[in-house]
This record gives sequence, C-alpha cells and structure tokens, in this order.
Amino acid sequence: MAKAKTTNTSWGGRFKVPTAGGAQAFTASIGFDIRLYPYDVRVSIAHTKMLAHTGIISAADRNKIVKGLHAVEKELDSGKFTPQVSDEDIHMAIERRLRERIGSVGAKLHAARSRNDQVITDVRLFVKDAIAVIDDAIGGLQKALIGVCKKYESAIMPGYTHLQRAQPVLLGHHLLAYYDMLSRDRERLASCLERVDILPLGAGAIAGTTLPIDRAYVAKELGFARIAENSMDAVSDRDFILEFLSDMAILFAHLSRLAGEITMWATAEFGFVTLHDAYSTGSSMMPQKKNPDIAELVRGKSGRVYGNLVSVLTTIKGLPLAYNSDLQEDKEPLFDSVDTATGSLTTLAAMVTSLRFNEEAMAAAASDGFLLATDLAEYLVSAGEPFRKAHEVAGNIVLHCLENDISPTDLDAKALRKFSKKFGDDIERLMTPRQSVDRRKVVGGTASSNLKRRLRKLSK
Amino acid sequence: MAKAKTTNTSWGGRFKVPTAGGAQAFTASIGFDIRLYPYDVRVSIAHTKMLAHTGIISAADRNKIVKGLHAVEKELDSGKFTPQVSDEDIHMAIERRLRERIGSVGAKLHAARSRNDQVITDVRLFVKDAIAVIDDAIGGLQKALIGVCKKYESAIMPGYTHLQRAQPVLLGHHLLAYYDMLSRDRERLASCLERVDILPLGAGAIAGTTLPIDRAYVAKELGFARIAENSMDAVSDRDFILEFLSDMAILFAHLSRLAGEITMWATAEFGFVTLHDAYSTGSSMMPQKKNPDIAELVRGKSGRVYGNLVSVLTTIKGLPLAYNSDLQEDKEPLFDSVDTATGSLTTLAAMVTSLRFNEEAMAAAASDGFLLATDLAEYLVSAGEPFRKAHEVAGNIVLHCLENDISPTDLDAKALRKFSKKFGDDIERLMTPRQSVDRRKVVGGTASSNLKRRLRKLSK
Amino acid sequence: MAKAKTTNTSWGGRFKVPTAGGAQAFTASIGFDIRLYPYDVRVSIAHTKMLAHTGIISAADRNKIVKGLHAVEKELDSGKFTPQVSDEDIHMAIERRLRERIGSVGAKLHAARSRNDQVITDVRLFVKDAIAVIDDAIGGLQKALIGVCKKYESAIMPGYTHLQRAQPVLLGHHLLAYYDMLSRDRERLASCLERVDILPLGAGAIAGTTLPIDRAYVAKELGFARIAENSMDAVSDRDFILEFLSDMAILFAHLSRLAGEITMWATAEFGFVTLHDAYSTGSSMMPQKKNPDIAELVRGKSGRVYGNLVSVLTTIKGLPLAYNSDLQEDKEPLFDSVDTATGSLTTLAAMVTSLRFNEEAMAAAASDGFLLATDLAEYLVSAGEPFRKAHEVAGNIVLHCLENDISPTDLDAKALRKFSKKFGDDIERLMTPRQSVDRRKVVGGTASSNLKRRLRKLSK
Amino acid sequence: MAKAKTTNTSWGGRFKVPTAGGAQAFTASIGFDIRLYPYDVRVSIAHTKMLAHTGIISAADRNKIVKGLHAVEKELDSGKFTPQVSDEDIHMAIERRLRERIGSVGAKLHAARSRNDQVITDVRLFVKDAIAVIDDAIGGLQKALIGVCKKYESAIMPGYTHLQRAQPVLLGHHLLAYYDMLSRDRERLASCLERVDILPLGAGAIAGTTLPIDRAYVAKELGFARIAENSMDAVSDRDFILEFLSDMAILFAHLSRLAGEITMWATAEFGFVTLHDAYSTGSSMMPQKKNPDIAELVRGKSGRVYGNLVSVLTTIKGLPLAYNSDLQEDKEPLFDSVDTATGSLTTLAAMVTSLRFNEEAMAAAASDGFLLATDLAEYLVSAGEPFRKAHEVAGNIVLHCLENDISPTDLDAKALRKFSKKFGDDIERLMTPRQSVDRRKVVGGTASSNLKRRLRKLSK
Repeated sequence: MAKAKTTNTSWGGRFKVPTAGGAQAFTASIGFDIRLYPYDVRVSIAHTKMLAHTGIISAADRNKIVKGLHAVEKELDSGKFTPQVSDEDIHMAIERRLRERIGSVGAKLHAARSRNDQVITDVRLFVKDAIAVIDDAIGGLQKALIGVCKKYESAIMPGYTHLQRAQPVLLGHHLLAYYDMLSRDRERLASCLERVDILPLGAGAIAGTTLPIDRAYVAKELGFARIAENSMDAVSDRDFILEFLSDMAILFAHLSRLAGEITMWATAEFGFVTLHDAYSTGSSMMPQKKNPDIAELVRGKSGRVYGNLVSVLTTIKGLPLAYNSDLQEDKEPLFDSVDTATGSLTTLAAMVTSLRFNEEAMAAAASDGFLLATDLAEYLVSAGEPFRKAHEVAGNIVLHCLENDISPTDLDAKALRKFSKKFGDDIERLMTPRQSVDRRKVVGGTASSNLKRRLRKLSK
Repeated sequence: MAKAKTTNTSWGGRFKVPTAGGAQAFTASIGFDIRLYPYDVRVSIAHTKMLAHTGIISAADRNKIVKGLHAVEKELDSGKFTPQVSDEDIHMAIERRLRERIGSVGAKLHAARSRNDQVITDVRLFVKDAIAVIDDAIGGLQKALIGVCKKYESAIMPGYTHLQRAQPVLLGHHLLAYYDMLSRDRERLASCLERVDILPLGAGAIAGTTLPIDRAYVAKELGFARIAENSMDAVSDRDFILEFLSDMAILFAHLSRLAGEITMWATAEFGFVTLHDAYSTGSSMMPQKKNPDIAELVRGKSGRVYGNLVSVLTTIKGLPLAYNSDLQEDKEPLFDSVDTATGSLTTLAAMVTSLRFNEEAMAAAASDGFLLATDLAEYLVSAGEPFRKAHEVAGNIVLHCLENDISPTDLDAKALRKFSKKFGDDIERLMTPRQSVDRRKVVGGTASSNLKRRLRKLSK
Repeated sequence: MAKAKTTNTSWGGRFKVPTAGGAQAFTASIGFDIRLYPYDVRVSIAHTKMLAHTGIISAADRNKIVKGLHAVEKELDSGKFTPQVSDEDIHMAIERRLRERIGSVGAKLHAARSRNDQVITDVRLFVKDAIAVIDDAIGGLQKALIGVCKKYESAIMPGYTHLQRAQPVLLGHHLLAYYDMLSRDRERLASCLERVDILPLGAGAIAGTTLPIDRAYVAKELGFARIAENSMDAVSDRDFILEFLSDMAILFAHLSRLAGEITMWATAEFGFVTLHDAYSTGSSMMPQKKNPDIAELVRGKSGRVYGNLVSVLTTIKGLPLAYNSDLQEDKEPLFDSVDTATGSLTTLAAMVTSLRFNEEAMAAAASDGFLLATDLAEYLVSAGEPFRKAHEVAGNIVLHCLENDISPTDLDAKALRKFSKKFGDDIERLMTPRQSVDRRKVVGGTASSNLKRRLRKLSK
Repeated sequence: MAKAKTTNTSWGGRFKVPTAGGAQAFTASIGFDIRLYPYDVRVSIAHTKMLAHTGIISAADRNKIVKGLHAVEKELDSGKFTPQVSDEDIHMAIERRLRERIGSVGAKLHAARSRNDQVITDVRLFVKDAIAVIDDAIGGLQKALIGVCKKYESAIMPGYTHLQRAQPVLLGHHLLAYYDMLSRDRERLASCLERVDILPLGAGAIAGTTLPIDRAYVAKELGFARIAENSMDAVSDRDFILEFLSDMAILFAHLSRLAGEITMWATAEFGFVTLHDAYSTGSSMMPQKKNPDIAELVRGKSGRVYGNLVSVLTTIKGLPLAYNSDLQEDKEPLFDSVDTATGSLTTLAAMVTSLRFNEEAMAAAASDGFLLATDLAEYLVSAGEPFRKAHEVAGNIVLHCLENDISPTDLDAKALRKFSKKFGDDIERLMTPRQSVDRRKVVGGTASSNLKRRLRKLSK
C-alpha cells in the first residue's frame, strides 16, 4: 500500500507527494496567526477537559495534555519554541510541539474538532479581548476630552458650518460632540460583542461530530454566552468580524474628523491650539517647523481601517458554504484594525491632554459680530416677527455692515431700528458672544449651564 | 441700501448676485431628496405644534400652517405640485408652496430650526421606516427558506468545504445556516435602530436656539426614543447612516453567498435545483438557455451595496464640525441601499420558494463513500484510538480506495480490519449517508432530529 | 407541441410560463440603459450594413432596417417612443419598436450577434465619448487655473507642509501643482482609451458565430482601433470600465484636495480668497453665512466616485466566464461617475474663475519671518557649513526668536553672527519672502521666472 | 540660550522637550520603510555625486560619503546594523549610521534636499522595480496558460454563460481569455510606469532650493525619464501609487475569476481538473479531502488588494498641499499589494502548470446536445430565415426535447423538418461539438484553426 511521505502530519495520510515548497509558504498562515497562540492554548485546554468530562479520553490523558499545553504556551511566551512554515498554522504548531513533549497521548487532542471550528473559536476569543481593550481606549480618549473641557470650561470659540464662522459656541460644547460620537462607538462595540460571544467549537469541519461531546461545558469553560446553533454557519460565517471592522471604520470616521480639526486649529491662521513639543515633530529641512504628526497620522490611518473593512467584505463576497481557504484572509485586516485603533486612541488621548488652547485667539475669532446675526433674527421672532421676515431683516443688516465695513455689534438699538421697529433697547445687551452662548439653554444647546451639567454627569 | 435680487428666498438677504445657473443645478438636492417629503411634512407639523405649544406662535397660526402642510403633501402625493431646481431642496420647496397657499403666516414655520437639524430629522425617520421594511423583508426570505426546509425535510446532500465534498448534510441544515445569518442581520438592524432613534431637531444650525422650544414634545410627537444631547453632534454626525449601510453590506455578503450557491446548484453539473420558468430568463441568441438572472443580480448587487458604504465613509472622512455640504452626499447611497435590499430580498424570497430541488441528484452526490472517511476516523476514536492515529488510518483507507478505484463503502468490516483491528462488524451498518447525518446529534449538528426540532421552533 | 406564452419575444421559445412580474421588474435594465440608445442604434446600423456587405441579408433588407432604426432613434429623441419594463432592456426595446415599424424584416437584425456582445459594444462607444467629454472638462479646469495664475502672477502666499507654514511660494506655483495633477489625469484617460477602443461585436454570446461576418468592416464603421481577439474575453471582461472608474477616483482624489483648500482659504481665519456670490450659497437660519457649497460638494462627491469603483470591483470579483447577469451592474456606477466628473469639473472651473484672491492677506501670512529659516540654513551651506550644522544653527535662531517673541527677520547680520560667524551682511537683503521665492530657480522651484516660463508655455 | 535636548538629531534644534515615547513609536515608520534602504542608498549616492558635480561639496567629501553609504548598505544587507525606533525612519537611520562611521562630513549629505522629496524618490524607484517584477510574473502565468493550451489543444468543454452551458468551446480558447486579460494588465503597468518614472528629488520640502543643484544630473544617474516640474506637486502627489494599486486591483479581479473557475472545475460535480498533490492541501479532520487552497487563497487575496487601493484613496482624500504625515500611510498598502501580486502570480503559475485536465469529462459535458441550439438557429439564418424566427424554431425544438427527455442531437433531419422546412440533410453532419467549435472561424471565435494560429503567435 502506497504511503505518502509528506511534510504535514495532520492530513498527510491520503497524499502521495509533499506540498511544493513555494505552495507551502504561500498557503501557510503561521506568519500571522501565531498571534492567536494564547487563545489556541485556552481553547485546547477547554476542549481537553470536555473530552475527559464526557469520557472520550481518560482523566490521566487530560492531565498530561493540559500540562503539556501549559508548557508549550510557556515556550511560546519565552520564545524558546518558534513555529516553522512547515507547521502551516499555529494550531498545527502547538499540536506538533505538544506531541514532541508528551508523546503519543497528544494525538488524542484533536478528537471531535477540526481546525475549521478551532480557528474561529480562537478568533472570537481574540475579538472579545480586543473589544474590551478598545472600549477602554475609547474611554481614555473621552476622559482626555473631558479633561480639556474642564480646563477650559468658559472658553468661547466660533462654531463653524461649511467651515464658515456660524455662531459662538463653547470649546467644551464642541469637544463634547466628539465625546458623544465616541459614546456611540462604544455602544456599537457592545452590540457587536453580543454577536461575537457565540461558541463555534463543536461544529467540527462542517457537520458536527458523532462523538458525544458537551458544547455547553466548553462554552462555560471559555466564557461564551451562546452556542452556535448551526454547524455550517459556525465554521463559515465571518460577520462578527465584518461588524467589528465596520465599527472600527466608523470610529475612524470620527477620529479623522477630530484629528483634522486639531491640525487646522494648530495652523498659524487659526492659532487656536499649541501643540506640546513632546507630541509633535520637526522637519529635516525646515528648522522652524513643529508638525502635528500624530493628528495627521490618525487621520491618515482612517485609510487602512476603511481598507481593512473593504478587504474582508470583498473576500467573503460570493463564497459558497462552508469553510473556504479564502477565509484565512480575515485575520491580518482584523489584527491591523485592532492595533491601529489601540495605538491611535492611546496616542491621541495623550496628545489631546497635552494641548494648550489659546483662549484669547478663540475669543477674538468668536467676537466677530456677524456671528450674532442669528441672534438678531431670533430676537425679532421673539418680538413676534415671522421667522422668514426676521431672517431677511437680519440679512439686510449683515449686507449693510459688509458694505460699510462695520460689524453688527457696532450698531446700537437705534441704528437697528432702521431695519426693524421691533428692536428694543435690550438688544444691545444681548449682542455679545457670551450672551449668545448662554441664552442657548435648550436641551443640547451650547449654554454654559448645559456644559456644566453634562461635565458633572460625565465625570462620575 | 443695496438689496440682492436672488432666486433663493430662504437666504437671499445678504447676497447681491443670484446663484449662477449651473451652480444652482449642481448644488440642488431636490432631484433626490424629494423622496423625503412625507417625512418633511411630518417633521414640520410636529415642529409647528410645538411652536404653538410653547407660545412661539399662536394656535390660529398653527392651525393654518398644519392645514397648509397637509394640503401641500396631498399636492405632492397626487403630482399636482412639482418642485423646481430653484427650490434647492425639498424643505424649501414645501415651505415655498406652503407660503403660496397660506400666505405670510407660512413665514413663521422655520422659527427655531435650521435645515441642518431639519434634514437629518427627516432622514432619521426615513431610516426608521426603512429598517422596519427591510427587517420584514429579511423575515420573508427566512420564511421562504423554512418553507423549502420543510418541503425537503429529509433530503441529503453533500456538505462542502473548499468546494470539495466533505460530509453528508441535510439540505435543511445547509439552508438554516443562511437562516441564522439572516437572524443576525436582523439583530444588527435592531441594534442600529437604537442609534437611529434619536431626535436632532432643536439643534438649530449648530448651537441650539434662544427661543423657548420644547424638544421632548417634538420627540414624543414624532416617536423618537431619545434626544440628541449635543447640538453640534446632532447636525453633523452621520454614523447611524454608516452603521445602517454596514448592516446592508453584511446582509449582502450573506445574500451573495446564497445567490452564488443557487447559481452553482442550478448548473447542469450539480443539477441540485431546477429554476422555475417564472424566475429565470432566456438568451437572445441561444434558444436553450434558462438563466438564474435573479440570483446573479442579487450577487452582483453586493457591489453597489458595498460601494454605497465606501461612498459615505469616504465623504465623512476628515470633515470638520459641524454641518458641511459634503453631507448632502449621504442620501443617494442610503436610498439606493434601501431599495436594493428591499427589491433583492423580496424577489429572492419568491424565487427561493419556487425552486424545485432534485433530491435524487443530491442524494447521489452525497452517497460518494469518501464522504464517510470522517465517520471511519471517529469510529476508531470511539474505539479508543487517538484521533491523529485514527485520522491516518482513515487516510490510508482513502488512498487505498483511490488507487483501486473503489469506494470506502465497498469495504466490509473484514477489509477495514486490515487497516485497523479496532473496526467491529457494526461499522458496516454505520457507513451510509443517513447514518452519518443522523448520528451528528450534537447541538448544531446536522442530525434529522436537530433539524426537526429547529423547524418546529422557528415555525412558531 | 407546447408553446410558451411569454412576455418576452427575444427568448420565449423554450419557456412555458411568463416571467413573474416582480422578477421582470427586478431584472430589467431599461430604467438605466435607455441612456445607451444612440449607441445601440449606431451599433445596429453598422451591424446591419455588415450583414448586407457579407451577403447575410439583402441590400433591400439593409435599407429597410437602417431606415427603421433611424426612425426609432428619432422617436426616442423626441420622447414619442417610451420603452416599457416588459422590453427588459434598450436593445430589446429598439428591436421591438423596429419590428412594429418595419415588420418581419426587423427579425433579421439580430443575426450573428447576441446581447452579450452588443451591449458591451454600446458601452465601449459610450466610454469613448465620455473620455473625450471629461478630457475636455479637465482641460477647462486647467484653463481656469491658468487664468487665476496669470491674474495673480506675482502673489506670494505661505506654502504649507503638515498645514504649518513652511516657506513662501507663489500662488501660481501652488495652483500649477493642481495643473500638473490634472495633466496626469488626462494622460491616464488617454492610456485608458487604448483599452476601451476595442470592438467586441462578433463575439456572439460566447463563442463567435458560424455566419460569415466581417468584424473588420464593423470596426471601421464604428471607428474602433482594435478587434477583440477572444470571444469569451470580449463578452465578459469589464476591465476597461474598472480602469476608467479608477481614473475617475484618482481625479477626484485631486479635486477633493483642491476643493478642500478652497474651503480652507475661504475661512475667516485664512481669508485668502473671497467667493463670488454667484458661486456660493446662504443659510436658511443664519443670515450672515456665505458658504462654499460647490467646493464642499466636489470634495464630498469623491465618496460616490470612490464608491462606484469599489462597486464594480466587487461585482466582478470571482465571477466565472463568460457573461453573467452580475455584469448588468456595471452601468449605473459608470454613468454616475461620468456625470459626477462632468458636472464637478464644469462647475468647479466656473467657480475657480470667479474667485477673488486677497493678495494682501496672503502676503501678510507669507511675511512670517519664521518661513525663512530654511533660507538661513541654506545660506550657511552656501558659506561652507555642513547642512546638519546649518540646520541646527537655524533651529537655534528659531528657538531664540520664539522665546523672545521676535521674528528671525528682526535680527540683523550682527545678531545672526552670534549664532554663526558665517553670516555675511548680505543675509539681510535675502531675508524677504520675495527673495526667498525668486532664488528658488531650480527646475520645479517656485521662482517667478519659472512661473512665467511655464505660464507662457502652457498658454499655447 | 535654551537648547533642546531631544532624541532626534535631524530637527531637534527648535524643540525643548523630547518626543514622548509612545508618540515616537506611533509616528516612526522605520518598522516598514526599512525595506526601502537599497533605494535610499542609491538616491543618496546620486545626490552626493550631484552635490560634488555642482560644487556644493568637494570631491573628497563626495568620496567619503559615497564610500560610507556603501558601507552602511553592507551593514544593512548583513544585518549588522539594525535601525532603532528612535531613528524615526530609514532615511534618518542611514544618515545617523553614516555619521557614526565617517564623522562630521556626513552632515553635508542632506543639503538641498528634504525627506519629503527623498522618500518619494525612493518609493518611485521601488515601484519601478516592482512593476518589472510583476510584469515578469504575469508573463510567467501567461506562459503557464499557454503550456496548458498546447498540452490540451484539442480539448472541448462547454462554454458557460450565467454558469449555464451555452456552447461548446475549446479549453484553450477559454484559457486564452485569461491570457488576454493578463496582457491588458501588462499594458496597464506599462502605462503606469510612464507616470512613475519622474524624478521628484530637488523639490526640497516644498519650494525647491536656493542651492545650485542639477536635477537633470540626478535623473540621469538614477535612470528617471522625466523631472517633476512643480515642487509642490512633486512632494505631495501619490497618484502613481493609486494608479499602481488600481492596476493590481484589476489584476486581482482577473485572478479571482481564474482561481474561482479552477476551484469549481476541481469539484466532484464538474470534475474537469485534478489538482496535483503538491499544489493542494488536506484536512485536519476529514481524511479524504484534497483542497484547492492555492486557488482559494488567490481568490481571497483579491480582498486585500482591493482594500489596499481603498486605503490609499481614502488617505489622500481631501488633504491640503503639500506634504502631510498622512502620506506616510502610503507604504504598507503598496508593499502588501506588491508582495501579494508577486506571490500569487508565481504560485498560481506553478499550480496551473501542474493541473491535469480531464478531457473526457469535459467532452462528455460538451456533448450535451442542447449546446447546439444556436447552431440550429444559425443554420436556419444561413438558409434565409430571419434570425428571430430561426431562434424561435430552435427554441421550440429545445422545448420539445425537454418535454420528451431527448436531446436535439437525437433528432434527424426529418424530425427537424417538422419544425422548419429549411433544415437540409446536411444538418445532421453539423450537429457535433467539434463541428460547432470549428465552424466558428470568425476572428475571435473558438475554432481550432484560430487557436492554433494564436498559440503559434504567442509562443514566439
């Protein structure tokens, strides 16, 4: 009977020719899935315990295997054991090393499972951890924002629409917009977690197993909330990765906006913020430069995070059930988005904390009298003017000021009454940025009282 | 005092020159946002009631405006009133028509709001409806799948990994994998809804308003669960659209897989399924053709749904706060994904229901004895063989059969014992697709008993 | 013998049941491919002439068909003939109407061709035209940029890296960077055209035809430079569309940058440019606003143009040969990118021409003495100092100025010599933005002499 | 005078506080741009020679620097010198090491250049090499396809549209469709090269330099065909990367199709091709499996290659001129697409060469008489029947055969004449797959004579 001489111990039985060298290197995933080893060991230990619990292996075998797995993990921790390309992937590497250490009993580990269900169990544990880490890092950035809000609680700046000065707002109000975006990012991750937290192990290669395994035992052991109800879905679906990558993309949509604003505020022209030397870099050619690299990089990294999402979406498009090797391509984009998010959030939080806001420059910009045009219009509405009429009157005042190169705040009540009889003398008192801000007490408005209340609440 | 003669009545006060014709056409959104008119009318009515409720306008004015809005809506319903490019957008079109109908009182409608908060309120109502419709349509496809599962409850087919026959599975088990994917799609939409269901109105252009509005009143009137807590976030963030578009992209990842499989099953080579004439098309050149257009189109439409997500992600990248005109580009991709999802789900459900599965062809394919190699290995594990050894033995049996052009099912117990002493006589009885399927009773496994139980549960 | 009663006349022969209504609407492309009708008529006329030229039909039949096609085209031009959903697509609609007009001879038109090769011939003609139109529109924007360069030929502004002021540059030099990007966009379109300009007609459905057609005749008739050499490739490949959509995406990368800069320059903080009233819009709430909508929209539309590329890339991924209905999804993204590019380029060109640059504001910003730090360093290099040493000296001068709140231009030669003995008295004369600019005469440098030379050359 | 103590020697002069550790690690690019070192050394040598050529440095200094650069390169080749995170990037690492080796003269190297123009010169050289390597690898896959075509020159298979059998074609004809796609991929790379082959060096940081450099000298030294004409464009534009990444995306659209077809042909159901053991892998659970991993992975990798394009497109969207740190994010996607393309093409070529096509299975599938329905219709057209009529007749024959469970080839001329009097006796001779193939002699058709001619031509 012919016997295949092959480099692979896990599936060599039916092969007569070993895998070609180039093909082996091309198909091996060990170069990146080595990162999953702590999860793979955990999963194998839980699986081993279950095999003993259900009587598929003996308690003695269980003890040997579990001990062996711990030992292999230590070797991986310390760098003593380095998997090879010929191991194909981390699962085979660990099993190979286990069998080198504990001998033939190691051959019992892979009963009632397949790499198809094993790898995706590892990945789910990884994503659960990643969500916790990133949630924490988002929280860190939120805390940094709160810190800035408190430090500059009374600072007024222009609010912009279309990048044109619109109305005066509090810096803290502006920054809390980002706080709220980040809160939704955390909500999204929490929702995603519900769909990550499902145990696939036990699905086998595709159809389940004939061996009397206990999936609930494994779920409890590994801390999974649910058990996948369909073996084919369990091994082939990657939508929890897609959802996670979408959440990361949306997070970076937010971060790119914040980073872009910091970059803009740090210009000489805006001058709203001064970067700390420790969080900026210089130029190899121009001696005077101090560059907001961190903000720029975070903004730029939106590219890779968007790209990672597109990458996995593309890979999954049109694949038949169940497992296909295409799915091996899910890991690098996932790892990259996790690392990019963690690094960006942490660095950005430190950088935000170090920012020095220039309250005077912001106040000067906000004192542009044209920003109070809406206040003029709303004053008239309060006085009974229909809004469109009020808006038109204010527009005419604006045009008048532009043509005469003056500001609406240069006009006293009398002058304003030339445009509308409804202006009372009290209009003069109201025409300041501070009044404009503080009178917007409506829920969600920029009034100082609102900011104070929210900061108190969010600081808890 | 100079007075601008301009085509636009909503912001013309400060302008001296009307918008250039080409520029007006380029910036107008009326061509697509007309679709939002029922929502815009609802929002304006709720806003009007609130203005009266808070005393900003009189009850009499309220009645006139509300009546006028209902009349304008009817005109739009019936096509009597057609907005023009010079209206710029649906909000201005409705207000213009309102004022034509009810006169100067219409000028009071826009108090304490801006198009910035108005438009995004409309869009949120639209997405709330869209989620309900799509959730329903997904449910319809699930129902169609259940129907097929029941009709062919005992049908066995090969399960595939790497598109190679792997192990026998039930057709129903295979289809329920899609059912479960779709269930998660619905879960995701439900999660998304929580972040859609937030009222932005009252944020004004950017900073709130000085007028004494009551946002809780409006939220109740329009059925929003939450109120946006930051006016700048309220008018500038689009992450609920991104999340919805991501959910649609993931849905189409699933649909593209199902559609791809139907296309493959309908080949002459697979022959697992026959399309109904009513759900297939012919060729203009080749008289014999019957093509699975619907499945192909659904698969192909994953492109546009992915593209819509990328489109809005790109648009939002790097935008400063708060509103920018770039955000006008959020609507068409959103509408397109809604329509694509609705149309695809509905048509696919009808097509799935009309499929005729060829049980014999599937059974013949599943009777390939090599599909039972895993059963051989698991038999040996049950008999105490370590899995890797058992796997190798089964591999050797496979190779032996391949070399002798026979099937593993051609070997009786005696012949199998040449490969391992552990094979008992009972192995012969177990080596059928039906046994292979039904012995996989583990939770999530393909056993008939599992399928029955799930179908019963899901039919409720 | 059973005879199918079906709604479709082009492939109904083998069908017993008509297409379901929903399915028909779902699969029909007439809603968007009607746009191809002028190309479809041209292609059919060329095909008809060839059929007569090769003797497949008679000259008399040719005359009737050609005359009929011209008549149908006129009906489509005038809106007299409106295709129906039941026509499925524009090709069938035209053929149906042709047969209604000229009777049974119309049934000869579709000999030796299939919709598979017909549609892609239409699309290639469409893209050829689109490339010409867009190339022209890019040229229009380039001309607008040249116009601004000439008008403000001597205007100096700060050049930015990392959005920090770096060195003084000419406005014209800055704008010519965009000119050069756009030139490459045109180069790319010209390259793309070579791969568009290939005739697929004659490929039939997949394999060619047994009829004695003359493809060279058709190619000449329609003005195609090459003939597709493989029938299966001819009907199934869409890479010319992908390449065109990529070119559009790169174009919009460029346009988004230019638009973003205009938006930034138009801020109160930069104040480098004033928008013309005719190319800006106002606010429905804030009377003072003048918004750069056009620039914002162009920037935002990069989203849809990127998305269109992703859309078609996704659709094509993994499709088997040859034609699949998925490919029907190639048209809408293509049309949309063509329209978006044309509209954006034209509007942007008009808007750019209307811009009023504020030379004083730019000059003031450029007179920031720190921008000359590189000139200090390069001076020292000219005087024999190693660059790193020179850079460090200049860095120390910068730091000294920052600490004492003065500008490097406040230091005379004597003061500078405290930092390096190598400063001669001539350094004082060189420390102006104009000198800084004009001394950069190197090829590609910002010197006025360079700008003059290029403008002269480009104006030809 | 305060003096900054900083970790960075290239721009530390104006800084008082060193970069924070986390920030430094976050902003450093040395982790990936180390790959550019051979190009960076080449660029620095050319630059040094030019500095001496123009008299900016002495010949003696030139010799020392060039010698030192060669030595540093050798240290990098051998792994003796390992850059650190504190080096920030490969450019600073090399300069630092150079100065350690040759002392203060090394400080002269960076005169008249900036990292902004240096890095993009390195990258352009890298892409020039990458294009050559990938062009070669595409050629390798084309050669492999030609090899298969020749080996199976007479093999007939069904051609598919909509994955339904359409008409018989030659296997070689089918595979040459991919050959032609790949030829266009090579054309595209050649077009791209024209826009890569442009020297940016000399642009300095943004504005050029005041030093009397000679860019033409450098261009000649490094082998660049053109010199960038605008310094701001030179340092900030990345469209040659976008174009290259688009070309890779289109290439992978093609590869994903080929890989998908191989995967499908290798199914038990199609059985058209048998994979070589050396180019397939097994299952850890199912002993009988032989999986087309390589094809699956190539198909799956379309995801990352599409994603890389989206990544850089996103990063560039909306960036102001000139250099921004965001652009640092261009390298990893670029490197990844280069490596993915090279690895995929090489492995796929070897795998394709090893494929064993099963001519009998393909012939059996192609002998399906329904595939000749078009031949029936075209026969009637030749006999003077209008095509639509002929198509309908053939459709009726098809339906008749379906209803009676026979094949069109089961009908003799007499039987066919029941459907149309125009069938002559010669129709019987023509109704074979071979005749169907060989009569499609039209340019681009599947006839054997066409295949022979093309193979002869392409083999040269």
